[in-house]
This record gives sequence, C-alpha cells and structure tokens, in this order.
Amino acid sequence: MTTPDRLLLPHLLRALSPPGREVLAGAGDDDCAAVRWPGSKDLLVLTTDMVHASADFPPGATPLQMGWMASAVNLSDLAAKGARPLYLLMAVGLPRFDPAFARALARGMDLCARRCGARIIGGDLDRTGEVTVAGFAVGRARRWVGRNGARPGDVVGATGPLGVAESTLLHLKKRKPLPGPIARRRLLEPVPRVRDGLRLARRATAMTDVSDSLALSLHDLARASGVGFNLDPGALPVEPAVRAAARLGADPRDLVLYGGGDFGLLFTCPPGAEAALRREVKFHRLGVATRRKGVFFGDDSVDERGYSHF
Amino acid sequence: MTTPDRLLLPHLLRALSPPGREVLAGAGDDDCAAVRWPGSKDLLVLTTDMVHASADFPPGATPLQMGWMASAVNLSDLAAKGARPLYLLMAVGLPRFDPAFARALARGMDLCARRCGARIIGGDLDRTGEVTVAGFAVGRARRWVGRNGARPGDVVGATGPLGVAESTLLHLKKRKPLPGPIARRRLLEPVPRVRDGLRLARRATAMTDVSDSLALSLHDLARASGVGFNLDPGALPVEPAVRAAARLGADPRDLVLYGGGDFGLLFTCPPGAEAALRREVKFHRLGVATRRKGVFFGDDSVDERGYSHF
Repeated sequence: MTTPDRLLLPHLLRALSPPGREVLAGAGDDDCAAVRWPGSKDLLVLTTDMVHASADFPPGATPLQMGWMASAVNLSDLAAKGARPLYLLMAVGLPRFDPAFARALARGMDLCARRCGARIIGGDLDRTGEVTVAGFAVGRARRWVGRNGARPGDVVGATGPLGVAESTLLHLKKRKPLPGPIARRRLLEPVPRVRDGLRLARRATAMTDVSDSLALSLHDLARASGVGFNLDPGALPVEPAVRAAARLGADPRDLVLYGGGDFGLLFTCPPGAEAALRREVKFHRLGVATRRKGVFFGDDSVDERGYSHF
Repeated sequence: MTTPDRLLLPHLLRALSPPGREVLAGAGDDDCAAVRWPGSKDLLVLTTDMVHASADFPPGATPLQMGWMASAVNLSDLAAKGARPLYLLMAVGLPRFDPAFARALARGMDLCARRCGARIIGGDLDRTGEVTVAGFAVGRARRWVGRNGARPGDVVGATGPLGVAESTLLHLKKRKPLPGPIARRRLLEPVPRVRDGLRLARRATAMTDVSDSLALSLHDLARASGVGFNLDPGALPVEPAVRAAARLGADPRDLVLYGGGDFGLLFTCPPGAEAALRREVKFHRLGVATRRKGVFFGDDSVDERGYSHF
C-alpha cells in the first residue's frame, strides 16, 4: 500500500524524530506532540495547524470568524489529547496591509482562545497571496492519550456534532435557508471540545478529533493502534441538520461519515469505563475495536476519505 | 507619531495579552514570548516566524535551503533571548503535492534544527499559492533578557556578520562573482547564534537579533527600553563582503545599518560587564545607551528602516 498523500508529512516527521523518553509523541503521528518538561509532572502538549482563505474558511466567513477558526483548529487538537489549553502564537499572512482586517482577525483569534481558557501571547505578520494563518498551541496534560492506545474489545464512541458542518455547507452552496437558527454560527465559530476532552482523557485509551471526517479519524485510530473497528448498523446519529441536507438530495450516512468541519472527539475506552464516562460526557457509542484491521459496518467497509488539503 | 506598519501586529497582540506574572513577555513586543511553567525554575520561551518563497528566500535557494531558513529564523529568535533551543513544529504550505520537494524541505529544517541542538517534533501540511513555512520554536531559559532592559550608560554591542547577507545579495542581483568562497552558504544557510546568545544572556540587560537590519533592531531596543543610542563614528565594522559590494557602487554604511538577512545579535550590558563578555563572545562595541531618545552617530540620526514584509 502506498502512503496516502495526507500522510506524507507525518511520515517525514516520524523519520526525523521518532518518539522516545523525552518526546512521547510527535504532532505528525498524532494530533499533538507531547514532551516532558524538566522539574514538572505535567506534559507539555504542542501542536500546529495552518488555515487559509481558499480551503478552510466557509463562504461568508467574516475576518473575525477567520480568526476564530484559526484558533479553533489548534485548540481542538489540544482538546483531542485531553490537554488544558494555555497559550497560542499566530503567524498571520495577509495579501495587503489592512489594519481593520487585522484587528478583526486578532479579535476573533482572541475570542476563541479565551472561550477555551487560553491566551494569545505571540505572533508574526507577513505578506502572502491569500489570508493564511498558522497557529501554534501550547497545552498541559496530566497523562498522554495518543491515537495508538485502542485495544481489541474497547468501546469506540464519538461526541457530536457529526455531519452538521458539511450539511450546513451544502445548504449554503445550494442557496437554501440554513438548517436551524444557529447553523451558521456552528459552522463558522465551532467551539473546541476542551471540557469533553479533559473528562474523556481520564479513562480513554485513544482519542483524536474528527475535524477532517469521522471516517478518516476512525482509520487514523485503527492504524495507529493496530486494531480495526466494527460499527453497529444504526449507531450513526442523524442530527436535524443532516436530515435537512438529505432532503436536498445528499446521503445522510455519507455526510456523517465523510463530512469535515465538525469538532467532535472520537475515542476508545475499556468496556468497563463506558458507564462512568457517560455520566460525565454526552457521546454516541459507535461500536467496538476488533482484531480484524479496517473499519466496517458488518461486512461493508468504510472508506478512508474526508476533507483533504491535497 | 503613527504606528509604523511593521508594528501593527505587536500592538494588537500587546492589547490582547499584556505581560504579567505568568507571561513575562509576548512575542509581539519581543523576539519571543516567555512564560513560567508550574513546578519548573526555567522559563518556557516560545516564538513563531513565517517565511515564504517570494519574500524570504534569496534567488537560487534550494528546497533544502528553504527548509534551513525556515528553522533558522525561528531559532535565531530563541538565540536572541539566550534560550536553549529544544523543539520546532513546522506548518508547511506547498503549491502542489511534491514528495521530493517536501523531503528536501524537511531535511533542511532538520539539519538546521540539529545544528542548534533542537528537534522537529511536529508539523502540518497544507496547500498554498507559494511555498510558505510557519515555524514555531520552543526553548528554555534561566533568566529573561527582554528588549526593554537597556539603561542609560549601558554599552551597546553587536556580534557579526553585519551587512554581509545584503552585500552577497547585491552580487547575485548584479550577476557578479560572489564576495568570497562561502558567501552563498552564509546567505542561504545562516547559522543562528545560539552559543553567543547563551553567553551574552548571562550579563546582557537587553538583546535582540538583527535579522531585519541593525538599524531596526537598534530602534526596537531603544523604544522598548525608553533610551536612545549614541553610536561611535567609525564603530561600524566593514567586512570584506561589504567592501566588495562598495566596489559595485553601494554605500557600505547603508549595507551595515540597513541590510537585512544577517543573524547577528544586538545587546546592551552594564559598562562593568563588557570585559567579561569580551572574553567569551566576539562582538563589536557600537556605542552607549543615552537618556536622549533616538539612534544617532553624534548628531546624525539613524533611520528606522530595513527589511519589511509590507
């Protein structure tokens, strides 16, 4: 099997810097890198994610919402490791010098950061062909929950929303009334699941976010952990926004599995931990981890696709 | 006085996140941000810097050298705070999927990182209009040396090279033989002054790098510290590469003061510390800090200009 395009950089990075005692994981292999800091029991959790106008901002996004999104994608990576967000640094590229735009962008970054308990403490401003923001997020975690800890028999679950961003996007593209009063805001100002991540991390064996698609995240966890997933037919939640998109001709199952842009968390846990987690976090039980590799609904395999930058 | 364009982001960031007990400085006000980490005596020093093809890579730069430069600009920011480089994360944007290019870029990043004792532990790959790399560097420091600690009477000094990158660039633009056998390498693979930074930081009152120009850095230290600088006429070193550029019609003083792309360090220290520093680090004594604001050679003022992204 050849390396999927989207795994090129992770592969390059893993070759440069294999995990060891000091560096528990790199942010190519996983949502974040985790390193030990001398004198501290906590782990330093680090990530970077770049967004830019043509690929990552839905139509109609304001400068403030672009800034929000740039912070959100990075903070969601921290949430996916159960890390408490602390700091953000933002490298901003703008096509032209526009103080009003820059101010709105910075305000959006800051609003999302504060919502998640983080502060923006640095940045860089540069000239680029289109609006481009590379964010860097720093968080703190008690224990490390990688993508590679799922074991056969573990329960696999996901927090919502699932398929909602893609469904809203479909309405925008077809110029239809949006599915619900807060649909636009959920698409343009997604809230990273920091609290869910902190709670899930206490008992999860593996975790990641689903921002590129549920299917890609299932395959990522499966591959990293050396397991497969058997999903229960009927386990996929179909939210009202997805049902509305189905009435526009889309396949609801495709939207939930392969749609990007939602900020839910996908995790596995031992069967005995499920009930305790359910008391703290609202999630959908999707199925179980198996020795058989791959991701399946019974005998139907789930494709490895979703949002990809290439 | 209006805000110079290049100070827009620093001003926005300072408004978002004023320094305090936990965050000693932000990387808008200074080369890096510095934060305290619970349980550790050392400071966590963080920075971000974005480079891209049309503005930051000299003509003839190979993909490996682009990667080197992307790491170098970030590691130089750490060097300028006397921080020991530890980790880098790199967000990479490429115009098209090109594994050979990506591999060479990653190799260049890694070579420069290792040269400075750091490891690349994460990244992100995205599609952009031109080659764009946003780096994020993490370092550790014992004490904080900001831009704002210079006091009237302090000595101001700089490590070389000064004006050499700009002089080499001039030769390339005029298609003249390069000034010296390693000129191309000094331009395309500049080495961050990590060891000099560590040594200077023990006694320096303020420090920054000179990558955008010596003049801009002098003005930055002066403004942040609330002092001025009086430079000795004849104090500016004129290296052989600069003399060679003068023979092509350039003003050597302009090259040294206003040329960008060199990775020397500019610092101030109490007069009593100068001799001890000179035993450890090779530097040029440029003059003294004064109560009078601004940067002067006697009565001639030094312009606030150099390399600017806007």
